[in-house]
Amino acid sequence: MESLAALLLLILLSSLASSFPHPLDPLTFTEISTVRSILSSHPPFSHPNSFPSITSLSLLEPPKTSILSWLPSSPPLPRRATITAYSPNLTHLLSIDIPSRLILSHSTIPHPSAFPRLTSSDISRASSTTLSDPRVIRIIKNRGLDPSRINCLPLSPGWFGPQEENRRLAKVQCFALFYNTTANFYMSPIEGLMVLVDLDVGAVVWVRDEGRGIPVPNGEGTDYRYTGGAVRRGVMMERAGGGTGFEVEGGHMVKWGNWELHVKADERAGIVVSTAKVRAVEGEEWRSVMYKGFASELFVPYMEGSEGWYFRGYMDAGEYGLGSCAMPLVRLNDCPRNAYYMDAVFAGEDGRPFVRPDVICLFERYTGDVAWRHSELFSDEAIHESRPKVTLVARMVASVGNYDYIFDWEFQQDGLIKIKVSLSGMLMVKGTVYQNMSQVPKEHDLHGTLVTENLIGITHDHFITFYLDMDIDGPNNSFVKVHMTKQEISPEESPRKSILKFNREVARTEKDGRIKLNLYDPSEFHIVNPARLSKVGNPSGYKIVPAATAASLLDLTDPPQLRSGFTNNQIWITPYNQSEEWAGGLFAYQSRGDDTLAVWSERDRPIENKDIVTWYTLGFHHIPCQEDYPLMPTVSSSFDLKPANFFDKNPILRAAPYFEEDLPVCETFARGELPNCNSI
Amino acid sequence: MESLAALLLLILLSSLASSFPHPLDPLTFTEISTVRSILSSHPPFSHPNSFPSITSLSLLEPPKTSILSWLPSSPPLPRRATITAYSPNLTHLLSIDIPSRLILSHSTIPHPSAFPRLTSSDISRASSTTLSDPRVIRIIKNRGLDPSRINCLPLSPGWFGPQEENRRLAKVQCFALFYNTTANFYMSPIEGLMVLVDLDVGAVVWVRDEGRGIPVPNGEGTDYRYTGGAVRRGVMMERAGGGTGFEVEGGHMVKWGNWELHVKADERAGIVVSTAKVRAVEGEEWRSVMYKGFASELFVPYMEGSEGWYFRGYMDAGEYGLGSCAMPLVRLNDCPRNAYYMDAVFAGEDGRPFVRPDVICLFERYTGDVAWRHSELFSDEAIHESRPKVTLVARMVASVGNYDYIFDWEFQQDGLIKIKVSLSGMLMVKGTVYQNMSQVPKEHDLHGTLVTENLIGITHDHFITFYLDMDIDGPNNSFVKVHMTKQEISPEESPRKSILKFNREVARTEKDGRIKLNLYDPSEFHIVNPARLSKVGNPSGYKIVPAATAASLLDLTDPPQLRSGFTNNQIWITPYNQSEEWAGGLFAYQSRGDDTLAVWSERDRPIENKDIVTWYTLGFHHIPCQEDYPLMPTVSSSFDLKPANFFDKNPILRAAPYFEEDLPVCETFARGELPNCNSI
Repeated sequence: MESLAALLLLILLSSLASSFPHPLDPLTFTEISTVRSILSSHPPFSHPNSFPSITSLSLLEPPKTSILSWLPSSPPLPRRATITAYSPNLTHLLSIDIPSRLILSHSTIPHPSAFPRLTSSDISRASSTTLSDPRVIRIIKNRGLDPSRINCLPLSPGWFGPQEENRRLAKVQCFALFYNTTANFYMSPIEGLMVLVDLDVGAVVWVRDEGRGIPVPNGEGTDYRYTGGAVRRGVMMERAGGGTGFEVEGGHMVKWGNWELHVKADERAGIVVSTAKVRAVEGEEWRSVMYKGFASELFVPYMEGSEGWYFRGYMDAGEYGLGSCAMPLVRLNDCPRNAYYMDAVFAGEDGRPFVRPDVICLFERYTGDVAWRHSELFSDEAIHESRPKVTLVARMVASVGNYDYIFDWEFQQDGLIKIKVSLSGMLMVKGTVYQNMSQVPKEHDLHGTLVTENLIGITHDHFITFYLDMDIDGPNNSFVKVHMTKQEISPEESPRKSILKFNREVARTEKDGRIKLNLYDPSEFHIVNPARLSKVGNPSGYKIVPAATAASLLDLTDPPQLRSGFTNNQIWITPYNQSEEWAGGLFAYQSRGDDTLAVWSERDRPIENKDIVTWYTLGFHHIPCQEDYPLMPTVSSSFDLKPANFFDKNPILRAAPYFEEDLPVCETFARGELPNCNSI
Repeated sequence: MESLAALLLLILLSSLASSFPHPLDPLTFTEISTVRSILSSHPPFSHPNSFPSITSLSLLEPPKTSILSWLPSSPPLPRRATITAYSPNLTHLLSIDIPSRLILSHSTIPHPSAFPRLTSSDISRASSTTLSDPRVIRIIKNRGLDPSRINCLPLSPGWFGPQEENRRLAKVQCFALFYNTTANFYMSPIEGLMVLVDLDVGAVVWVRDEGRGIPVPNGEGTDYRYTGGAVRRGVMMERAGGGTGFEVEGGHMVKWGNWELHVKADERAGIVVSTAKVRAVEGEEWRSVMYKGFASELFVPYMEGSEGWYFRGYMDAGEYGLGSCAMPLVRLNDCPRNAYYMDAVFAGEDGRPFVRPDVICLFERYTGDVAWRHSELFSDEAIHESRPKVTLVARMVASVGNYDYIFDWEFQQDGLIKIKVSLSGMLMVKGTVYQNMSQVPKEHDLHGTLVTENLIGITHDHFITFYLDMDIDGPNNSFVKVHMTKQEISPEESPRKSILKFNREVARTEKDGRIKLNLYDPSEFHIVNPARLSKVGNPSGYKIVPAATAASLLDLTDPPQLRSGFTNNQIWITPYNQSEEWAGGLFAYQSRGDDTLAVWSERDRPIENKDIVTWYTLGFHHIPCQEDYPLMPTVSSSFDLKPANFFDKNPILRAAPYFEEDLPVCETFARGELPNCNSI
């Protein structure tokens, strides 16, 4: 009876535990509904005709200090919402305490200082406004196209001077929609047709057409929808019994092996990883690695100065929203069969909650790689020891118009975190009269590659700037540049003439924390806790390990670069500041670059032994090639956060190898046929 | 009856086909035996007492022109052997035609110009010579150690001037062997004891001991052998029915999806990939991508100038042999269950063949990654299309003493080849009196990291230089630097102030083909066939895409750097020359740097529209951390060979997605238990 009572108590406690959300859990459907009902009685939201458009409605995260001291057994922390809303002359910022229904703050910012991201309505309005303009219709007809089969998309206009300051604008580009032939309208641009739309007034400001004579490709061979045929079969990644290999508590808290982390979707940042903790051995204390990490901004400048192209320097997180653009993942194909899926609950423009299913997947991955190994011949008997690498991947995909960005956070048992971005989807192509490179005069710069007849893939860059609030064994950390240089040695000292030496340089202020990578002047970049020493006295640390990347070569005063000044360095370090999360500024649309990481960093605040935030920018130069047409095979790059004297020794030395009997038994295909993987 | 006859004919033909080897197949057991019998009647091999030690005996590959024109239906090409043998005053180079038993050439090179790699006998002799020296025994006893439980390993001495020219030497380092406690003797160095051995005479030249007072760690906690306990379970990569997803014809010719390649093990280079061909669609012509690729040399300089350390600048391929050091792969752990294994047949020092089983594995890999995807919202109906990435991996592991190098060649269906090197195994550690960083005077440079009490992981680099004989659609190719620069724009031209432009610069001679990577002066590096244009007139090409790498910062005149001058640039281009395969020279042991890639390149030969070879060096700076003790978790880097206007369009657009019924059904574990992957 006693054990039954204990069991019942356990069941009760666990049901209670799961009924309290983790304080970083996103707002629930009910909470968003409550927020909307609170708003509905608060002006101007209380007037149905002037209900501002909600551009952001999400959890106001409790202060970091509260989160750090919170325990599952603690009373729940306040559930508050932060809201951005837009009405034609004002942007509203509100915070609301949900249980008490109190509006904690409501400030307004007059335009044009603060334009939030584009909403679905903005996109529809821009398109319909364009397609109801008789000039546009005439141009479309003159190209021999059916105006009812045209797709028009608003592009963020950037900011190029005060003449554009006083209204919220979109530059609209149109594509022919040969839907019977192809879904891939991006490959059928109506080149040279550019329409400037005032988004608030819902009016066309001007129509330009500089593309007469440039053919609109008919989309043949560009479709990518599966219509049957080739069967791909047989290779998979699997767990038996349908298990995932990890637990997800309360929908967001993930426990896998020696990792514990909170994962959620954010409408602006996309996937957000919080309070990542690790330990070497089960039962040991959990040790903090990262308080919060996410893609803060994504800058995509195109390299063409002409009327239809110069302004293209997208800031996809701030202008469109990476979470807003995250679509349901395609099961079995975006993520393997053993994946767990997480939904997002977002608020619509009207403040009503909606569920976006399957936007994040988590899966255990066995890559076929090796976690560690050694073969030893010079011992009494030959030794061959090897351990398979198994990781946990958390993934989200943002489909920002033509491009698809796959964001992976991969956790290894040895404590390493790999952050990977993969690019797929469609190029932004420019129509041209040329069908072959032999027709292009030598002095004519295409600003890209002729990817097929009449289409140029325009050169561009991608920069993804990650916010990484590393808290190595606690918030107070230092940034240490482990700088490697050649040390010359005199003949008296050694037969060698030189060695590579390293110096540990502790960054005192923000300017010391700005890093431009240089292969011939290399450093390691450590975030250490100077107060936590290893058993032999090294400070506990993680290092940020860049891999392939690209730097912006644009002029620092070029308007797109000015707005995206956060890409001026590969690494920045700032003191933690709850209001400095968005590298391009809270309001990125038509921003002027006055609220970026580059500006904040100019204050040169102290960063030594402080709660600091690391910013890393992963870059890609993209000179298109024909293989990118009509849809790009994925291109990936990554960087690592790697323990460096964080553990006293290799934490996975005691990992077990695989034996045959540990693996699932797979007998047949569901279809019952033999494997045939060669026909792709 | 007719069909039976046809069937019999087919069986006959296919058995004939498989009885002729591919002309690049390595020598068989029988062929090596024949070579030995031919040698046995040829002086000095005919005298049993003066039989030179065979340091290399392998296929003399037929001339490239013969291979390129060879077809499976052609008569077999000559089967010839190339042999390097060593006798105390001479190095012999021979070539033998096997079927005719003719010795085609026999040249001798007097010492000290040409020392081949160390043999097992050299290693044993160096160890036994050391351990029979009474001075060594006394030193060992003085440290309180049992001389019968000591392991001594010869280290290549490099070359530091003419005083070392006249004999073949090894520097011997000893370790305490606490075998009951640990197999990991590398963590118990007898620091400061260094013995110089004359390998030919078998005598100790000198004994030095500068390590008195430095404790020898007792190996506690350093063992890595599996002794039961934690069970890792449940994640796997699998094909149903035991299939591999590819075919291997004649033991070496691999056909997978749209790839065809020849894979073999070489005693010096390790894994060799030859005649890699790809096509977009089944039935189309096979198109040449790479004639031959392998790791040509592996340079590992240590960054410590003292007596016991200055000379450590290993050239593992030329001094030890990557294939010679390749051990059988650990099934299920080094490679997944669906792997196919390839054996190597090598010749021993006595010329007799032996089989090294399972040194190469090939497996189809599903990483859980995406080959391409797009979600489209702005069309009549939402579209979500995604295709899983499936690749073919060919892997070999070389265990060169303490370090394990995992070499992966990974082929993607989109034509990309990823070449990855992963490092594991043990650090070379140096004994020290220090137990904690607090004891180390500020001005004292450890030249590394205190990884545990009394052991410093010494800073070092790894450089792996790959030989890549790219033949894009045929042998005659050009190297094109697609150089990116900032182009300033005037206000009259555009509201932009700058764009990124690119220029295609064709390399005329070898000096144009030397590349030092620079993040702020970037280029793409294309190997193109100027005679083969795409449908829109772009030359067919592949680009070499670096990822994380490191450059050597050593002085160009520092002896180790001089010997490894091939690491002076990240990329070199040379005209094809059958005798220029080994970046550090044919004879690397005690080499003086007079036969390296850096020397050959000085001739500045024309390389435009020629049969050219690309050399890429993948580098790692390795400042050890405590996690690397007592055995390193793998560290990886890679580079890609990526189609760039090689295909007219994305070659995998028509790939099929996975459906549930395409995947194997996995029900249970062989052990019949539920999965539990959290306990590692």
